[in-house]
Amino acid sequence: MRDEGIPVIEPAARVGDPVEAIDTPALVIDADAMERNIAAMAGFARERGLKLRPHAKTHKCAALARLQIEAGAVGVCVQKLGEAQALAAGGVRDIYVSNEVIAPQKLARLAMLAHQVKLALAVDSLQGIEQLALALQPSPASIDVFIEIDVGQGRCGAAPGQVAQLARAVQARAGAGLRLGGLQAYHGGAQHLRTAAERQAAIAQAAESVRTALATLRAAGIECPLVTGAGSGSFVFEAASGLWGELQAGSYLFMDRDYADNEPAPGAPRFEHALFVKSSVISRGASHAVVDAGHKSHAVDSGLPRVWGAALDFTNGGDEHGIVRGRPGEPLPDLGATVWLVPGHCDPTVNLHDHYVLVRGGLAAGRVASILPIDARGAIR
Amino acid sequence: MRDEGIPVIEPAARVGDPVEAIDTPALVIDADAMERNIAAMAGFARERGLKLRPHAKTHKCAALARLQIEAGAVGVCVQKLGEAQALAAGGVRDIYVSNEVIAPQKLARLAMLAHQVKLALAVDSLQGIEQLALALQPSPASIDVFIEIDVGQGRCGAAPGQVAQLARAVQARAGAGLRLGGLQAYHGGAQHLRTAAERQAAIAQAAESVRTALATLRAAGIECPLVTGAGSGSFVFEAASGLWGELQAGSYLFMDRDYADNEPAPGAPRFEHALFVKSSVISRGASHAVVDAGHKSHAVDSGLPRVWGAALDFTNGGDEHGIVRGRPGEPLPDLGATVWLVPGHCDPTVNLHDHYVLVRGGLAAGRVASILPIDARGAIR
Repeated sequence: MRDEGIPVIEPAARVGDPVEAIDTPALVIDADAMERNIAAMAGFARERGLKLRPHAKTHKCAALARLQIEAGAVGVCVQKLGEAQALAAGGVRDIYVSNEVIAPQKLARLAMLAHQVKLALAVDSLQGIEQLALALQPSPASIDVFIEIDVGQGRCGAAPGQVAQLARAVQARAGAGLRLGGLQAYHGGAQHLRTAAERQAAIAQAAESVRTALATLRAAGIECPLVTGAGSGSFVFEAASGLWGELQAGSYLFMDRDYADNEPAPGAPRFEHALFVKSSVISRGASHAVVDAGHKSHAVDSGLPRVWGAALDFTNGGDEHGIVRGRPGEPLPDLGATVWLVPGHCDPTVNLHDHYVLVRGGLAAGRVASILPIDARGAIR
Repeated sequence: MRDEGIPVIEPAARVGDPVEAIDTPALVIDADAMERNIAAMAGFARERGLKLRPHAKTHKCAALARLQIEAGAVGVCVQKLGEAQALAAGGVRDIYVSNEVIAPQKLARLAMLAHQVKLALAVDSLQGIEQLALALQPSPASIDVFIEIDVGQGRCGAAPGQVAQLARAVQARAGAGLRLGGLQAYHGGAQHLRTAAERQAAIAQAAESVRTALATLRAAGIECPLVTGAGSGSFVFEAASGLWGELQAGSYLFMDRDYADNEPAPGAPRFEHALFVKSSVISRGASHAVVDAGHKSHAVDSGLPRVWGAALDFTNGGDEHGIVRGRPGEPLPDLGATVWLVPGHCDPTVNLHDHYVLVRGGLAAGRVASILPIDARGAIR
């Protein structure tokens, strides 16, 4: 049922428009760069015999998930059941909710979805496992259950020594459809340590936790089918460990300013910026220009956007404004001129927009190749 | 035209549900508190003979705009033309776009809207005035034009000494429908100076700029019909100045954590927190609990949310998680338990959600009284 009370947001451009005709602010993908990123990551995983299950919390778009799967990904991850529902509606058939779900009303929705697509869920508590089994009881469907362990982030996840108890609880509910998928081991805090050595050290610690968990399972006579995890900042190290069998990196697709600020890891593919906010100058002072993009067009949780293609510094202008100043020798853009921004953090920036405008032929002189809906925008439940 | 590609977001509750049944995360209004805020602000303006034109960039909701207008507001402000279109579609008849619009394709939309509702626009450049007149030419409709002056924020706005030239340019285009509305004088940077004395000093400076602009207009023989501006942190001072005739405060409706952290101004009404994110515990460690609300449920540009009704400290858990820890003596909430959050900044938090869930009877034991669509959510253009 569509809520008639909510007006639709029209896309900022039409297919075939030249780039300069894209209304602002708009979320623009350099489709050529994005496809190179997809191929590079798929190649990295393939060469190492690892599964790739990109995190769709980044792009929230069924069409982009399908592109990743066509390039070799086994499916996608999401963080919210609502994201899984939106992507399933868009034709994605293999979805892992890599996060805990506890509320009975959500688990009832999850049980319904498990009849439509191959579904997996992370758990870190006996209560979570019991609630899941209860929700599945009326009409059992298979769900792969991954035991999340805390590998250093200090957020969700059981202690590595507790995994046998949780794994046994999953196995005891095979009749309800629960199947032990393996271990969820993701270290979010490691992704943005700036030097490669710091990230390598953090993942070495995480690997110790994984080894402890695997030893605990072995001692209990439980086989672990798969360890899944890793992000765009650290996946080279998880891949090299020999422990992880599946990589969940998501941001490699777009490469935001914050990931680009990392020192690259040795052997990592070089991903390109592929996601931009197109903005326009709406006010011009003597020493600064004001663009029409602020907090409501780009997320600021990981810092401000960087201006792309011009020696301009961006400072915060509030919810609807950004302020740019020229570095020595750089002229200020005129009223109405375009300013391209590379978002500080791609995932929550994407979540502010309703559509992607995909451009081919470059940002300077390209054309709009397609418009993609951001299917799971706002799917926070 | 609705884009069939984008799935609808279902509301988190149904009318009549008890509060505990509201799915999470959800944006919840304490309707009783909000109505007291509306009445207090309307009373403040009425007692001083000032117009009140609340900023709808805060709530983005036609039904809430109508409540404010029924309580005495003359209309609302918005920052984006898309917001104006969404609110007009929801029955709001008097809308001021208190921001610069330069792009011809946007001004063409604005010209169409000017035939449907009473519309006003801010300008700070001759080019902006010319483009507006051009856009209106095919089918003139009256638009009130406010000359924005920079009163200390260093963002948009002409220098106070330039206003006569701009005002004359507006008056010269009366045939195209442009009418001089007066001066736009808003000091965003003053709103969150923590002490009342600092805010008073900033507005005293802003008032000097307004006096200069008014003198410049008088010297040019131009009458200024109205000075409009002020925000929830400073309106007491603009009101006391005798210069501003219209107040644009918006956040008073909800009172976020950041505004509540201000030392109250003498004589200001005491506004109550009326906007909350309801979250739930999805993971429980020994010394922390993890809730299902992160950057995608609440904005963090003005700092983190504060936990409401429990002595818990909130720390950042990323896009989809928040981490809470108990202060001495406060038990950690159980798995599945509700944690209420007061957002750091209401405006961009609202923009993350599709609906408000309005509760009457309090957050502890109340019921859902209504669900309101956030009409201009995502209306960034």
